[in-house]
Amino acid sequence: MVEKALDEIKRGSVEIIDSERIENLVKRFYNEGKNFTVKAGFDPTGADLHLGHTVLLQKLKTFQKHGGVVQLLIGDFTASIGDPTGKSETRKVLDRETILENAKTYQEQVFKILDRDKTEIVYNSVWLEALGASGIVALSRLFNVARMLERDDFEKRYKAGQSISISEFLYPLLQGYDSVALKSDIEIGGTDQKFNLLMGRHLQKAYDLPQQAILMMPILEGLDGVQKMSKSLNNYIGITEEPKDIYAKVMSISDELMWRYYEILSDLSLDEIAKMREDVKNGLLHPKKAKERLALELTARFYNEEFANIAKREFDNVFKSNKIPSDIEEFEAQKGIWICRALVDTKLEPSTSQARRDIKQGAVKINQEKISDEKLNLESGDYILQVGKRKFAKLRVK
Amino acid sequence: MVEKALDEIKRGSVEIIDSERIENLVKRFYNEGKNFTVKAGFDPTGADLHLGHTVLLQKLKTFQKHGGVVQLLIGDFTASIGDPTGKSETRKVLDRETILENAKTYQEQVFKILDRDKTEIVYNSVWLEALGASGIVALSRLFNVARMLERDDFEKRYKAGQSISISEFLYPLLQGYDSVALKSDIEIGGTDQKFNLLMGRHLQKAYDLPQQAILMMPILEGLDGVQKMSKSLNNYIGITEEPKDIYAKVMSISDELMWRYYEILSDLSLDEIAKMREDVKNGLLHPKKAKERLALELTARFYNEEFANIAKREFDNVFKSNKIPSDIEEFEAQKGIWICRALVDTKLEPSTSQARRDIKQGAVKINQEKISDEKLNLESGDYILQVGKRKFAKLRVK
Repeated sequence: MVEKALDEIKRGSVEIIDSERIENLVKRFYNEGKNFTVKAGFDPTGADLHLGHTVLLQKLKTFQKHGGVVQLLIGDFTASIGDPTGKSETRKVLDRETILENAKTYQEQVFKILDRDKTEIVYNSVWLEALGASGIVALSRLFNVARMLERDDFEKRYKAGQSISISEFLYPLLQGYDSVALKSDIEIGGTDQKFNLLMGRHLQKAYDLPQQAILMMPILEGLDGVQKMSKSLNNYIGITEEPKDIYAKVMSISDELMWRYYEILSDLSLDEIAKMREDVKNGLLHPKKAKERLALELTARFYNEEFANIAKREFDNVFKSNKIPSDIEEFEAQKGIWICRALVDTKLEPSTSQARRDIKQGAVKINQEKISDEKLNLESGDYILQVGKRKFAKLRVK
Repeated sequence: MVEKALDEIKRGSVEIIDSERIENLVKRFYNEGKNFTVKAGFDPTGADLHLGHTVLLQKLKTFQKHGGVVQLLIGDFTASIGDPTGKSETRKVLDRETILENAKTYQEQVFKILDRDKTEIVYNSVWLEALGASGIVALSRLFNVARMLERDDFEKRYKAGQSISISEFLYPLLQGYDSVALKSDIEIGGTDQKFNLLMGRHLQKAYDLPQQAILMMPILEGLDGVQKMSKSLNNYIGITEEPKDIYAKVMSISDELMWRYYEILSDLSLDEIAKMREDVKNGLLHPKKAKERLALELTARFYNEEFANIAKREFDNVFKSNKIPSDIEEFEAQKGIWICRALVDTKLEPSTSQARRDIKQGAVKINQEKISDEKLNLESGDYILQVGKRKFAKLRVK
């Protein structure tokens, strides 16, 4: 029982620090019924959750099944600093009103996944404001500049002569202090958060508390299969999107990315996934079928099976009604290609000026949707281009 | 009138930033009678003032004569951080009680020099505590890490792999914010404070205030003539010491250091000082007479002329009663020389073991005072060594 729980907990993680502590906490739960706390911090700098966020949420849900009480940390204080982790520039500072609005929207969404009864939602402004000016100074005595500059992104920016504000040095300390205030037993986060997660352990020790165990999950790639899923890159699947959109977006990803999503997002066992992959490889299963299964699972997760099936039927019908031939020619192009150029290169149009006229007249569709912007540049992805009723081409933009 | 005032103000300064502003403020005072503010910060990490501190206090007094209202800043908040300026290690953090006690002692002493009616004593905990946690974070957004690391001592320590705590990065920001809170027109400080003084200008600009002018004074050497005067090096003249001790300590300094003290500490005009120096050089004035004049001036400054004269008589009598011959032989030795070795080298003792025995029996005096420590090592300075009633030697330890 405990063994199975631990397997579930560790699945998909990239690194665990102090896994013995996790094992002991889970054992204690199964032997004595005692709960433990699992902290996860979310910066309310964006309102809508996407699949990338659900990687951690799914993991928290797993912990909840095995004795974990989730400390869902809304970094309303720290969001006012802006942490640049994984970014090359200081994050924009948000005003308090936006932060609180985002946090509210955020809460409405997390309970699509988390068990409400085993979740405490906590705001770090509560204890961080209470520290006061002298508390912040006292806290900042507990870490040194050289070690702070060892954090990957700080080091890179420092060496590149890019500005790092002193406030950014406070960020890791403040979010680490959250673990002190919350006396967290475990904290989970993305691999890009390692430095900050370790700060929690460092400060708990300085404050004479037991040190939290750390479990790090991978960063989910966006629909392009390359960059981190994020709203600003527009390569995301939002969990509040319409069922048909979630379904269609999953159907649009590459086969390779599909297996990655299976591994990180699916509830199917790793064995089942391996079997499916083998079947596809041996031609026993069409990759489209595998993708449909994933699209159904993820759509059902944020709605239910019925809505997922409706989404699938809709998706299939659109394709049928558009009578896309099954054997259309495939092309490749470089990222950022101009739509008119793409229409010429795929032999759908004789010239870019003709392409421009057709777009204006509404005769051009991308993935079954009419377009009107003749200046459009195509991002990475798979597209079905259509001119009029009968001319089709597949275009893979790399 | 204004010109003379400005000459007095600028005397002895090493660097002035925005001297035009100082000129305008002084002119305005003489034309319109409007006062201006002059900030000087003192860290209450030590209680007793010595001559080194009076360099700035004398300058403040000069400002008071020409329209300046002194903002005497007691850094009770920042003292709890410890700024390492000019030191190779993080300063020890003081508890609040000691800080306040020191500040009180400090205040009692400054009015030996400053005009009480033209002085505001201010504690920076008032506005810095009020900043709160989020205020500190907002403030720390106004400066960047790379520029902070350019501060001499930080750069050296960083490169040498010595620890710099994050709190030390807050220090310059907080003391710079003092100038914002106080809306200071001018700030004065030692040359070692340049970075911090400029921070005041930087932050005033960021807060949309007129920028303070800066006047930097030299750092006073201690009695050894080499290192900064400081209590911890025991090379200081405390302003609360007995008149006879102040007098005697001034009499103990080298001729070279005497001229330095004249320049920085005396109220004599630079012309008068130059004349005296010329006279000494040409043999018209004995250097001892010049030193007596300085000793009288400085003793009278912290007491009065009467006390100074008594101190002089006492000093002269001690020398007379000890019947020190006027033509005793002079020797030189290296700093740190062992007293027994010195007694042998100056031909007062035949051997170090004899010297040791004589010290134990109370037969050895240094500067007219019996010594008992046979392990003593001599610091830099001029000494009169004496064994028994009749054997004398002068020793200059370099």
